[in-house]
Amino acid sequence: MVPHLITALTGPINELEQRILDTTPAIERWFRLEWMEHTPPFYSSVDVRNAGFKLAPVDTNLFPGGWDHLTTQMLPLAVQAAMAAIEKICPEARNLLVVPEHNTRNPSYLANVLQLKQIFHQAGLNVRFGSLSPDIKEPTKVELPSGESLVLEPLIRTDRRLGLKNFDPCTILLNNDLSAGIPGMLEDLHEQYLLPPLHAGWSVRRKSNHFKAYEEISKRFGKLLGIDPWLINPMFAHCGGVSFADGQGMECLTTHVDALLSRIKRKYKEYGINEKPFVMLKPDNGSSGQGVITVHDAKELEALGRKTKAKPGAARDGTPAADMLIQEGVLTNERIEGAVAEPVVYMMDRYVVGGFYRVNAERGVDENLNAPGARYEPLAFSDNGRLPQNGQKPGSSAPNRFYMYGVVARLAMLAASYELEATDPDAEVYD
Amino acid sequence: MVPHLITALTGPINELEQRILDTTPAIERWFRLEWMEHTPPFYSSVDVRNAGFKLAPVDTNLFPGGWDHLTTQMLPLAVQAAMAAIEKICPEARNLLVVPEHNTRNPSYLANVLQLKQIFHQAGLNVRFGSLSPDIKEPTKVELPSGESLVLEPLIRTDRRLGLKNFDPCTILLNNDLSAGIPGMLEDLHEQYLLPPLHAGWSVRRKSNHFKAYEEISKRFGKLLGIDPWLINPMFAHCGGVSFADGQGMECLTTHVDALLSRIKRKYKEYGINEKPFVMLKPDNGSSGQGVITVHDAKELEALGRKTKAKPGAARDGTPAADMLIQEGVLTNERIEGAVAEPVVYMMDRYVVGGFYRVNAERGVDENLNAPGARYEPLAFSDNGRLPQNGQKPGSSAPNRFYMYGVVARLAMLAASYELEATDPDAEVYD
Repeated sequence: MVPHLITALTGPINELEQRILDTTPAIERWFRLEWMEHTPPFYSSVDVRNAGFKLAPVDTNLFPGGWDHLTTQMLPLAVQAAMAAIEKICPEARNLLVVPEHNTRNPSYLANVLQLKQIFHQAGLNVRFGSLSPDIKEPTKVELPSGESLVLEPLIRTDRRLGLKNFDPCTILLNNDLSAGIPGMLEDLHEQYLLPPLHAGWSVRRKSNHFKAYEEISKRFGKLLGIDPWLINPMFAHCGGVSFADGQGMECLTTHVDALLSRIKRKYKEYGINEKPFVMLKPDNGSSGQGVITVHDAKELEALGRKTKAKPGAARDGTPAADMLIQEGVLTNERIEGAVAEPVVYMMDRYVVGGFYRVNAERGVDENLNAPGARYEPLAFSDNGRLPQNGQKPGSSAPNRFYMYGVVARLAMLAASYELEATDPDAEVYD
Repeated sequence: MVPHLITALTGPINELEQRILDTTPAIERWFRLEWMEHTPPFYSSVDVRNAGFKLAPVDTNLFPGGWDHLTTQMLPLAVQAAMAAIEKICPEARNLLVVPEHNTRNPSYLANVLQLKQIFHQAGLNVRFGSLSPDIKEPTKVELPSGESLVLEPLIRTDRRLGLKNFDPCTILLNNDLSAGIPGMLEDLHEQYLLPPLHAGWSVRRKSNHFKAYEEISKRFGKLLGIDPWLINPMFAHCGGVSFADGQGMECLTTHVDALLSRIKRKYKEYGINEKPFVMLKPDNGSSGQGVITVHDAKELEALGRKTKAKPGAARDGTPAADMLIQEGVLTNERIEGAVAEPVVYMMDRYVVGGFYRVNAERGVDENLNAPGARYEPLAFSDNGRLPQNGQKPGSSAPNRFYMYGVVARLAMLAASYELEATDPDAEVYD
């Protein structure tokens, strides 16, 4: 079950692992206190990159797909976390309405929502699927290659509630990241719990807000551990109104790419890291791996502009990439059977419930792996020992490494919680 | 990992399994609502017997040992449940004081408390052990055969608090069932959480109270499922002041054994079960398997009296067995490599976190297995599918069977919660 992992763990990361293991009770207490003040996202997944010398989240998904890639051993953890989540939100609930993505004919995506159904069924809810797609005019059975099937039903909106025919849910769970905008059907639902909230969707959310919140958290966490927060924080900058097609915002981009590369170079020098710095350009509201570019030198931007003019680039669903995140590139030094890999950690409520490796044989260590060619390997523990063990040689133990991934992923989840509080349009402000 | 199980699952139990699987969301919601009104025991383990035609709890332990027998794959579940439990009780806690049994030189028992330490450490607490033993006058390191070690420290009681030197815990976790009585040191601690509460100890607790509460719950649960509660409930009676040595209370015992055997016979006839009914005599406040006797006929009691006179029987810690529980004997039809086996289900807070089979090659299907010769096999899931699957042939799937065990064990845990409420000496009564 355990993929054979080759991890070049040298230098600071071993110290980080050791520090995290030594500080476990304090770390867990720190999270416990944070969750007393802040609400965790209902569910989330975080892409983590382990550079060997640095471990950082690079993307936090608040509408995670891919639940079908979790190892079956970990499903009871997801069920238990789902029970805890439901109990807090709507303990008397009988029904859960799941609103999946539009593109619901993709078998892999359907396997994902079936897995979610299985988890919430086991946690004590009747689960049905309501589609936003105008094509779903009546209950429609969709067959999966596995032989399983699911039924997509048309959503029924009344003045105050959203449901299906003969199905009135207490909670509506979005597994649709709303990149195409917020459908009117989902607006002004004040009697039901709509999770995640609408402003977590990509029509409102901005990566730069997330990483700003994460940066603050990494500083506080760094203080708790007595480490340089850079070891867990990807530095970033942000440019508004960028268009490669007409050259708009290129000056901002060039300046920030240049400055960020210099900052990374200084850090590499400080730690004696002999690697070539790079940055990742990402649409600030991007929902997937599309439109993500690796840049090693600001000069490359010009060439990018020329290329884009020839072939107009567009982010998902046809919206132009306007705001850009410029993120420190974090190498991944993990490989599975020779292919570059990065862990993706899944969380439900405040609990880490599993994960997998995203593996892409067609990509390099400094590239986005969430791209065609990606496959998934369960992030499983070896059979002897599922909990981290103190006293093990740093880097030598899969559970130790996974605990560290889980800590960093939870920091990103906490950042999402802060981010959603800060961007909540209905927040009450006390000054 | 999965022991090869031979389970004679025939007749009603298959229907029960199917009914439980079909009713999963309603069952989980029912538990959720119960836990809104009632506090689950901090931790517990339940001995379950699967007779093939009937599945029932026969013993509920509120100071469970044997945590070291849980499969390592299930430990993350225990950690997650421990996190949820701590968060409710004492979220700001840094320290947990564990008070183990007196007999702390037993390597298997020490492995159990070390496992508890590992679980609570991972959940975010500094764990230390405080001994009630007068022999522990200073921190004493105890080595385990595994090479691990733990330190037992003398308890320090101040006027208002219990702790260790330089260690002031928010919560004190008893892993000592107090069969020898309640030490003064544990009394009147109103500033700290003492868990389980003192009246859960065997100097106060009575099995008959527990099974009375369980009977009520099994009726309500039977109604929810539309089944005869007998399928999950071991019938029982109770006699006070029994002494085999001087013949005291033998009339009560004879009458009740006779009556209970007749009731079982009627039930067997109703279901066409071709087995010989039997009852178990158990000390009403017994903490272990000692003093448990199988009886097939009230006439056997006379012989028992004669035997006991020759060799005075005494329950644990030297207290005479005064009150007796007469419990319907539930056959176990599970075998591992030819030896008789029964599942033991472990729970933390309201969650099932694991279990194992108690296997005893020296015992019969109608005998207590918690006796010399017992060994333990992890109750593990097979690798393909850790969650119950609807549509599987009843009895054919380990996860299905384990889910059913977990439901019955949780009913017993709920009974313990009712029992502790009913027997709480500090309960406020509103009439």
